[in-house]
Amino acid sequence: MSGHLLTLGELGPEGIAELLSLTDRFVEVGRRPIPRVPALRGRTVATLFFEESTRTRLAFETAAKRLSADVLNFSAASSSLAKGESIRDTFETVQAMGIHAAVIRHRSAGVPAQIARWADDGVAVLNGGDGWHAHPTQGLQDAYTLWRHFTPMTDGQPGAPDTDEPTLAGLRIGIVGDIVHSRVARSDIEAYTALGASIVLVAPPTLLPAQPRDWIDCWLPTEAAKRVEITHSFDDVLDELDVVGLLRCQRERMIDGLIGSVPEYVARYGLTAERAQRLAPDAVITHPGPMNRGIEIAGAVFEDLAANRVLVTQQVSHGVAARMAVLFRLIGSGTALPNADITGAEPAAASTSQGGA
Amino acid sequence: MSGHLLTLGELGPEGIAELLSLTDRFVEVGRRPIPRVPALRGRTVATLFFEESTRTRLAFETAAKRLSADVLNFSAASSSLAKGESIRDTFETVQAMGIHAAVIRHRSAGVPAQIARWADDGVAVLNGGDGWHAHPTQGLQDAYTLWRHFTPMTDGQPGAPDTDEPTLAGLRIGIVGDIVHSRVARSDIEAYTALGASIVLVAPPTLLPAQPRDWIDCWLPTEAAKRVEITHSFDDVLDELDVVGLLRCQRERMIDGLIGSVPEYVARYGLTAERAQRLAPDAVITHPGPMNRGIEIAGAVFEDLAANRVLVTQQVSHGVAARMAVLFRLIGSGTALPNADITGAEPAAASTSQGGA
Amino acid sequence: MSGHLLTLGELGPEGIAELLSLTDRFVEVGRRPIPRVPALRGRTVATLFFEESTRTRLAFETAAKRLSADVLNFSAASSSLAKGESIRDTFETVQAMGIHAAVIRHRSAGVPAQIARWADDGVAVLNGGDGWHAHPTQGLQDAYTLWRHFTPMTDGQPGAPDTDEPTLAGLRIGIVGDIVHSRVARSDIEAYTALGASIVLVAPPTLLPAQPRDWIDCWLPTEAAKRVEITHSFDDVLDELDVVGLLRCQRERMIDGLIGSVPEYVARYGLTAERAQRLAPDAVITHPGPMNRGIEIAGAVFEDLAANRVLVTQQVSHGVAARMAVLFRLIGSGTALPNADITGAEPAAASTSQGGA
Repeated sequence: MSGHLLTLGELGPEGIAELLSLTDRFVEVGRRPIPRVPALRGRTVATLFFEESTRTRLAFETAAKRLSADVLNFSAASSSLAKGESIRDTFETVQAMGIHAAVIRHRSAGVPAQIARWADDGVAVLNGGDGWHAHPTQGLQDAYTLWRHFTPMTDGQPGAPDTDEPTLAGLRIGIVGDIVHSRVARSDIEAYTALGASIVLVAPPTLLPAQPRDWIDCWLPTEAAKRVEITHSFDDVLDELDVVGLLRCQRERMIDGLIGSVPEYVARYGLTAERAQRLAPDAVITHPGPMNRGIEIAGAVFEDLAANRVLVTQQVSHGVAARMAVLFRLIGSGTALPNADITGAEPAAASTSQGGA
Repeated sequence: MSGHLLTLGELGPEGIAELLSLTDRFVEVGRRPIPRVPALRGRTVATLFFEESTRTRLAFETAAKRLSADVLNFSAASSSLAKGESIRDTFETVQAMGIHAAVIRHRSAGVPAQIARWADDGVAVLNGGDGWHAHPTQGLQDAYTLWRHFTPMTDGQPGAPDTDEPTLAGLRIGIVGDIVHSRVARSDIEAYTALGASIVLVAPPTLLPAQPRDWIDCWLPTEAAKRVEITHSFDDVLDELDVVGLLRCQRERMIDGLIGSVPEYVARYGLTAERAQRLAPDAVITHPGPMNRGIEIAGAVFEDLAANRVLVTQQVSHGVAARMAVLFRLIGSGTALPNADITGAEPAAASTSQGGA
Repeated sequence: MSGHLLTLGELGPEGIAELLSLTDRFVEVGRRPIPRVPALRGRTVATLFFEESTRTRLAFETAAKRLSADVLNFSAASSSLAKGESIRDTFETVQAMGIHAAVIRHRSAGVPAQIARWADDGVAVLNGGDGWHAHPTQGLQDAYTLWRHFTPMTDGQPGAPDTDEPTLAGLRIGIVGDIVHSRVARSDIEAYTALGASIVLVAPPTLLPAQPRDWIDCWLPTEAAKRVEITHSFDDVLDELDVVGLLRCQRERMIDGLIGSVPEYVARYGLTAERAQRLAPDAVITHPGPMNRGIEIAGAVFEDLAANRVLVTQQVSHGVAARMAVLFRLIGSGTALPNADITGAEPAAASTSQGGA
């Protein structure tokens, strides 16, 4: 890993798999009565959110705290940016206070990569979502969720590393909705293809890039691009999907004229009750949240499908563990902290009290 | 306790008394040089405030930190609720990150109870104030403040548990002002009557429920309801009160036409200098804050009465300890943590440093 | 020290020097892999920012956390002040929750001093910037930065205390720009003159007090006032300066008519490329940030000067250490904490785990 996390593509399949294997260990930490390890004690993680995203910020904050790091929250809304401060000055100011990682969220693609160029040695930059470009930790959490849904841990423990490699091989995953404006779609496509899944993008032409085939071929590695298909018809592919990855339908798209109307969108791309009945019996649903019930998915479908077929909660929950894996890899390894620190329990209060005994 | 704290009524007199006795111990913790105990180490308390309340949020946050819990702050103002996310989705997202308690504040009555239905096992929901309905931790802090004002601890230590039961028996408490719109009034009434006090509600008809007697009889237990009287005249009852519980006068009530004018309100319900002179010499004043000086209470009265007769500061201070008691009871007990953890001091820095010696 | 930090003037030269010497030790802490010491464990530092300032708040928050204190953030924007709560009620409420220090930021001069009068024994009030009056921790960080630039530590360690006294003797420091509206200028002048520097204030008459000489003589100690000169011409003094202390140019000044136009300001007071060439080869630049490139300093000058001649990053970085020194002195000393706690490392995770062994 380069020292930063900007996109999943730059990690390559091995890097992605390594982080997912590491996520297993932090999922286990999360199940403990005291879900905290001292791995990043004394390290400081700053969240620099130039665009608000409560759920992403809370997930990173929770991940950092579980690793015993300190968290500095910086939100542009309440900041001196209103006084005309540049992104660079803001970042360099926060950096000068002595941080080890900065999670960047910005509405413009490329800002985290630009900030990474300004980062001092020893400061890791993590992309927390940039424009339509990438949201790599979302991709990791989604890929992890699907891997562990279709290949569960045994007794809550991962298998032997050599036989329990992260994989989505053999799965057919539909990604449905507003592909062109979705950083989630891009990062999910990178993660899923790296793990061997085949993908079908389901969207109207207005919600796809202008030349979608060219776009895929020029952006993804050749091997990955081969596994991505495109269709405008949800109904054509519905019954062959193992996973229906719904994307959030943004109201702005209607204002922009890219979607005719909500009923029209639902009629063609919504997971209605009728469509839900045609799904394969083991097919699962993902959604990055927050979900528009009645648009992307009918309320009744959401309620009716067993909790283990709508994976939204698991996605969020694994999002904390996946971000712990990223933080640990970026600012925990390379230090003198022994491996035992990852899985070693936080010392219990009682035994600490007796520390001098 | 049910696993949640939604109203004081559901605790019953024993449950309320138990929490107040426990509060004693956390008041003692608050007096230590290092006012922190490890009881909730590794636990996460989320504050989900759909309506802003800095003082309530800070009190819960301070309580949680003194118990060594982590705190996740979620404020609706800066959240994705602006994108139309439902309360349920918001709660379930935060819950999926792995929390142990959620403090809910909302302008609508019943939201915390509804959220409690969505909570997973092992997640406690605490009502941090919902509409005009209830504010149970405020009721606890106020009842504790009155108990310990009239029955002080000896040498800063509680008496023997069997002889030092929380009680307000024999006290006559006036609750003055905007009863109908006040969650504080409701929770104070529940707490005070449960502890044996007699209550007189002092308000104009416009600031009481339409049928106040029926309201009291149908809402409170029979024994408690018997101890509640109603009057429209502050002057009639002034000299018989041991406690004057002032409520905040909201400016909106004037816009709504429920109060004619500020001078009119002050003339009938304000604690003016004249009225203050007629108070019993040991009578005390409470107020949930923030106080409108010159309306609920004359500035001079506030300044003149000795600090031990206006209990506002004590209410706030005890509010931290009362919330520690609630958090400890809800997410600390039932775990393997030994009782000693409550009163056991945080290990001193020096002895921890020598932990391996 | 009085128990509060309101201005640098009240500390006197010895008090300032003592804090700068102490800052050395916390700079050293900041360079450790785990930049945290347990000195203020269990203490609570509240930030009460009635005016937003992200960088000052983050600096205090980082300082407090590195000392293992808890931090309560209170921002007036989201507070009950909107409901008409007074500053006093707000402070007393936060104080009643049990805090040890309060950092106050307010747009009006004198608010921290007023709050200090309301503070209980054992609660330290720190001025985090009040109106045009003072910003003492900024003055400390700037003085420290200049001291350690011109008298570096040896091998990252301070010299012997008796030979390594903080001093700026022999330096000529220009403070350029909006003197009259700048709390930074006031605190820098106090700190620099206390350490023996000579100062020249560079500003148009509209950005100086009406009778600047009288102002200086009546405000500063006689010895200090003698070392302050005033000029309206940057060019006259440019080549004799060791330090160019640029102040932020506020857009409001143009609206107020105090500055004719940006080009006019730049022509007379901007650090343009032409002026930069006339600087002494060892002269350094400071700025409190955020910087308006193209106004106070030409973008090219900022980029071209070696990083060790524009000290902005060092100012921010030392700001954390200087605030650690202040917090430690105000709420850490006088307690039973041994001196060793300052420099003693946070116990490593591993050894703590073995605490009971």
